[in-house]
Amino acid sequence: MEKKLEKRWIFAFIITTAVAIAGLFWDHATVTEKSSQFNGTDAIVPADVAWLLTASCLVLLMTPGLAFFYGGMVGKKNVISTMLKSFICLGVISLLWVVIGFSLSFGSPLGIEISGTHYGLIGNPTDFAFFDYVDEHPHAKMATTIPFILFALFQMKFAIITPAIITGALAERIRFISFLLFICLFSLLIYAPLCHMVWHPNGLLGSYFNVKDFAGGTVVHMSAGFAAIAGVLCLGKRKNLEYIPTNIPFVLLGTGMLWFGWFGFNAGSALAANHTAAMAFATTTIASASAMLTWSFFDRLNGRKVSALGACIGAVVGLVAITPAAGFVSVPKSIFFGFAAAIVSNTMVNWKPLKRIDDTLDVFACHGVGGIMGMILTAIFAEGEDASLLHGGWHIFGHHMIAMILVATFSFFGAMLLYKVTNFFIPLRVSEEAEELGLDLSQHNEMLG
Amino acid sequence: MEKKLEKRWIFAFIITTAVAIAGLFWDHATVTEKSSQFNGTDAIVPADVAWLLTASCLVLLMTPGLAFFYGGMVGKKNVISTMLKSFICLGVISLLWVVIGFSLSFGSPLGIEISGTHYGLIGNPTDFAFFDYVDEHPHAKMATTIPFILFALFQMKFAIITPAIITGALAERIRFISFLLFICLFSLLIYAPLCHMVWHPNGLLGSYFNVKDFAGGTVVHMSAGFAAIAGVLCLGKRKNLEYIPTNIPFVLLGTGMLWFGWFGFNAGSALAANHTAAMAFATTTIASASAMLTWSFFDRLNGRKVSALGACIGAVVGLVAITPAAGFVSVPKSIFFGFAAAIVSNTMVNWKPLKRIDDTLDVFACHGVGGIMGMILTAIFAEGEDASLLHGGWHIFGHHMIAMILVATFSFFGAMLLYKVTNFFIPLRVSEEAEELGLDLSQHNEMLG
Amino acid sequence: MEKKLEKRWIFAFIITTAVAIAGLFWDHATVTEKSSQFNGTDAIVPADVAWLLTASCLVLLMTPGLAFFYGGMVGKKNVISTMLKSFICLGVISLLWVVIGFSLSFGSPLGIEISGTHYGLIGNPTDFAFFDYVDEHPHAKMATTIPFILFALFQMKFAIITPAIITGALAERIRFISFLLFICLFSLLIYAPLCHMVWHPNGLLGSYFNVKDFAGGTVVHMSAGFAAIAGVLCLGKRKNLEYIPTNIPFVLLGTGMLWFGWFGFNAGSALAANHTAAMAFATTTIASASAMLTWSFFDRLNGRKVSALGACIGAVVGLVAITPAAGFVSVPKSIFFGFAAAIVSNTMVNWKPLKRIDDTLDVFACHGVGGIMGMILTAIFAEGEDASLLHGGWHIFGHHMIAMILVATFSFFGAMLLYKVTNFFIPLRVSEEAEELGLDLSQHNEMLG
Repeated sequence: MEKKLEKRWIFAFIITTAVAIAGLFWDHATVTEKSSQFNGTDAIVPADVAWLLTASCLVLLMTPGLAFFYGGMVGKKNVISTMLKSFICLGVISLLWVVIGFSLSFGSPLGIEISGTHYGLIGNPTDFAFFDYVDEHPHAKMATTIPFILFALFQMKFAIITPAIITGALAERIRFISFLLFICLFSLLIYAPLCHMVWHPNGLLGSYFNVKDFAGGTVVHMSAGFAAIAGVLCLGKRKNLEYIPTNIPFVLLGTGMLWFGWFGFNAGSALAANHTAAMAFATTTIASASAMLTWSFFDRLNGRKVSALGACIGAVVGLVAITPAAGFVSVPKSIFFGFAAAIVSNTMVNWKPLKRIDDTLDVFACHGVGGIMGMILTAIFAEGEDASLLHGGWHIFGHHMIAMILVATFSFFGAMLLYKVTNFFIPLRVSEEAEELGLDLSQHNEMLG
Repeated sequence: MEKKLEKRWIFAFIITTAVAIAGLFWDHATVTEKSSQFNGTDAIVPADVAWLLTASCLVLLMTPGLAFFYGGMVGKKNVISTMLKSFICLGVISLLWVVIGFSLSFGSPLGIEISGTHYGLIGNPTDFAFFDYVDEHPHAKMATTIPFILFALFQMKFAIITPAIITGALAERIRFISFLLFICLFSLLIYAPLCHMVWHPNGLLGSYFNVKDFAGGTVVHMSAGFAAIAGVLCLGKRKNLEYIPTNIPFVLLGTGMLWFGWFGFNAGSALAANHTAAMAFATTTIASASAMLTWSFFDRLNGRKVSALGACIGAVVGLVAITPAAGFVSVPKSIFFGFAAAIVSNTMVNWKPLKRIDDTLDVFACHGVGGIMGMILTAIFAEGEDASLLHGGWHIFGHHMIAMILVATFSFFGAMLLYKVTNFFIPLRVSEEAEELGLDLSQHNEMLG
Repeated sequence: MEKKLEKRWIFAFIITTAVAIAGLFWDHATVTEKSSQFNGTDAIVPADVAWLLTASCLVLLMTPGLAFFYGGMVGKKNVISTMLKSFICLGVISLLWVVIGFSLSFGSPLGIEISGTHYGLIGNPTDFAFFDYVDEHPHAKMATTIPFILFALFQMKFAIITPAIITGALAERIRFISFLLFICLFSLLIYAPLCHMVWHPNGLLGSYFNVKDFAGGTVVHMSAGFAAIAGVLCLGKRKNLEYIPTNIPFVLLGTGMLWFGWFGFNAGSALAANHTAAMAFATTTIASASAMLTWSFFDRLNGRKVSALGACIGAVVGLVAITPAAGFVSVPKSIFFGFAAAIVSNTMVNWKPLKRIDDTLDVFACHGVGGIMGMILTAIFAEGEDASLLHGGWHIFGHHMIAMILVATFSFFGAMLLYKVTNFFIPLRVSEEAEELGLDLSQHNEMLG
């Protein structure tokens, strides 16, 4: 057994080493002046660079923030392991992104022909391998005023946090190395195609279905939420279903960091220091405020006390819901986004059948349902020509709903398959004794003081 | 009793719902090209937008920072409730600000005539209701190079943190729902008029009394400090006066976050990415450094040990004191600001009569007195024509001192009245048993692990 | 005994007071239009100001971050004292920097003549005393597009964190007041000359030896690492060598804050919101990701478990190693930087002889060795004319290696001497009883809850 365990780790180390050595000898391709795919560096707008550098920093901080948000909620014997699973995404997904993930997400579209137009399902994996051609030149179609490398990094932070979000559902029972394998598969085979289909200029969902996703409600939150629920069904319930949050101040800290970072996430998605960024900033903070209050008061009306935990979860649900619409709706509307999402998610969190399957930290109810709510509300209210029900009609709305069902289906069944594949190579779940002992000690030999 | 309790919460929920529904149907007014009150969007300076977006993020983080600063200091049974009271301001004040607070603060002046000039006491509440006309166009008089909505958001963070500062004084005994009611009243009836009078171009204090308040020493810290002491007098002492800080690392964390955020607060108040921002940044960090050391050594000379708690409180007092002067004095002067404020506030913190009334976390001694020190020193040293005693003479100084007394009086008695009003509707103080049990458990059903 | 103790503190207070009073009466010299040393304010680029303001904020946060990184690792009785030692650097070094440190680092070069060229060993201490001439005008040679004061502040944060890094090695046994004295001496006599020699346009190491140090690998990390090991040898081992990290979540938090702040450190060192900043941002995050994974898997291969502590230390080692090269190498190369540094530092951390001398938190193995690795790799790979072995030949590489040995020797023996001097005035080490009791209680009268 111990031998077999070692092999997995040797394999992990060998891959890391191989990537490092490959990086050392990689003949890094850079943009030549003649490329038509890229702008010259004179197209760079310094103020946009300043803001996007900042926004990328902010989004990085969301992952440690999530570690605290989740870590504070789990039981005492699983705090560190829960945190580490968020944190390690900063390592795994970053490398993956450089090697191949970014190419799969934003490389030239490989896809299907519909009525004579080519729509991308996924990017060409060799286009930007090891960040070839990803340098100081802005891309001619994506983020035209900042170095392409800055766009690649900003996008990287989104790719990092998506699997980190899933961890909350699987907490207290998933094996660490299996988790690492799963997130690699998830990132390449679910996140990358979704990202491509929504955000690449020729992506299927974005350009054929005309899906609006300002900052990742669909790509990040819906995909994570549905992958979470699939994981819960594959893993099964915890042995010990008791739920006593270990450290609520950690949850408050995590929420503060998430909120702070979310401004980078949403206002940064304007990809410029302009009025759209300011608008997105506004709707983001107001939706969150509205959801925080709504969640708290709704809890009280339903016989629960107003709690710090509730206020935090409410705030995050508001942030999730406004994400796809952040730059597309007015501030008064954003109040309603937060309100509606809080009511629906709160109801789902307390819905018995969902409780029964044991989504440890309610990832589906918050991110999955929050993402759905955001997508529906965006499909109703988004401003702009042919953007939504109110600005384009039922036809548009219908398209968005079809896209939503596609995304949900793809994320759910895709993730389910990847869990099975992972489980085939390495058991997803830790042994009963390890679970009993707690993952901190059994997986990492560490303990909360 | 239980019934009566419920009514308050139903009321709170109904208001939130009403705001959300109103937001949904609000016919949001935007700026038309012809408005003379606003600049065209071509007046926007992207670099200023980049910095103000960042600064607004930073100021947001101050409120969670304050939650940790205070939360670490209180007793074990009141950590979460203390933190939540800071945190919930992000929800309550944000919504209030959008609906009416911003209008009251920066709407067209309603006020009095003095020698033929109109001076504002408060803004017209309908001007920017639900952020009407608050959009991407810069205002022609206030923050002329950034979208007005960004200015509104930056200012919102100040409105949020002011009531959050008060919480420290009332910790361990104030009822949560009463606190919510009080901060709404305080924000609308004390903060908004002060903000208007100091920062609106036609405000009474700013334009008649020529009060200089670079980043809120008067508006934020003095008002909070005096409202704190009024609250302490209304609430009475805690049953159990023992004072054992639960988690000093939390205080260090909070201080770090506050310091970090304060750069947004002070350097952001330049409202541009220019040399004034850089100067304000400099004086802010140096005053804080100076106060931290002074406080620590002064403690030691007075027979106390140098402590982490002291270093933290000292640093914050330095930040408070430099706030009104941040952009108006040179770096060498800022050393003295920190030094003087630390000596005076430290003396006040240890002053028996003040200890006796039980301002739990010394909010008055730190923010009230720190704010006064800042205002006096600013009135002495601020550079610029007719800005202070040294640059304009005693006449100017006298004006500032009159303004200071007006602000103190208004904040103290105004807050006192609002506490009484609050208490009339809902008792301010929790029951004896609830206090005994600790507010975490009795108010929120939560516990520190 | 008690009397003697008091004298030290009276002395500390008198110095602080003297600085404050001096600041009050200082006739602050500002740049006149005619100075040839400075640009006019029209040379200021607002976007660069926006980014450098942000970057300076980020670097400030690294010091509290370090407090948590170290504080979480030490034993329960020394958490607060360890944190405070990082934190107090924000006070001590800031003031020192304004009064004289900045002049010593960036004043006009005092040094030696080699082949008719003047090379600086240290700056003229009177040039910018009390920030004379440090105002809104950009310097004509250093940071030409931002106010000189912003450059001075950005650099200040580096000066602050360097002694803070040392604290980890001396934890659990060094006397607080001795530490304060030592860091003043270190900052003036080791940090300032190194900073001058590497970063001043005429500095010996930078211009004669052509040393490349993008963001402080040499100046910050090597100097701190060697001063740390010297300190360990002077102080001796702790009485109680057991090593049980008190609070691993704090280590995770600290790492998150450090990583976040490091973007300011490295990408800010471009001193502009340009493509170099974006490149530095990229290599920084990727080197860190690579080192985090490498460290974790390498631990596992060597019979240790994958741990949160390991992931955190690995990430920081990656950040250290890429620092001198951040703007000079491509992303694929940065993967190798992180990989190589992690393997070497991990091996050193577990190297028995080093364990035996008791560098409490492995500062030498991480920062010293990480710094050396960074410097060697930079000397091999840095791009640019005559920048490194691969772009200039063995001659260049040899120069860099000589410089490296000079820096190591100077830092080590210099620090050794300063510890002896400090010890002559005030014993470096606390009494045996104080150590037994823990420094939190014995030095600061504070306790972890």
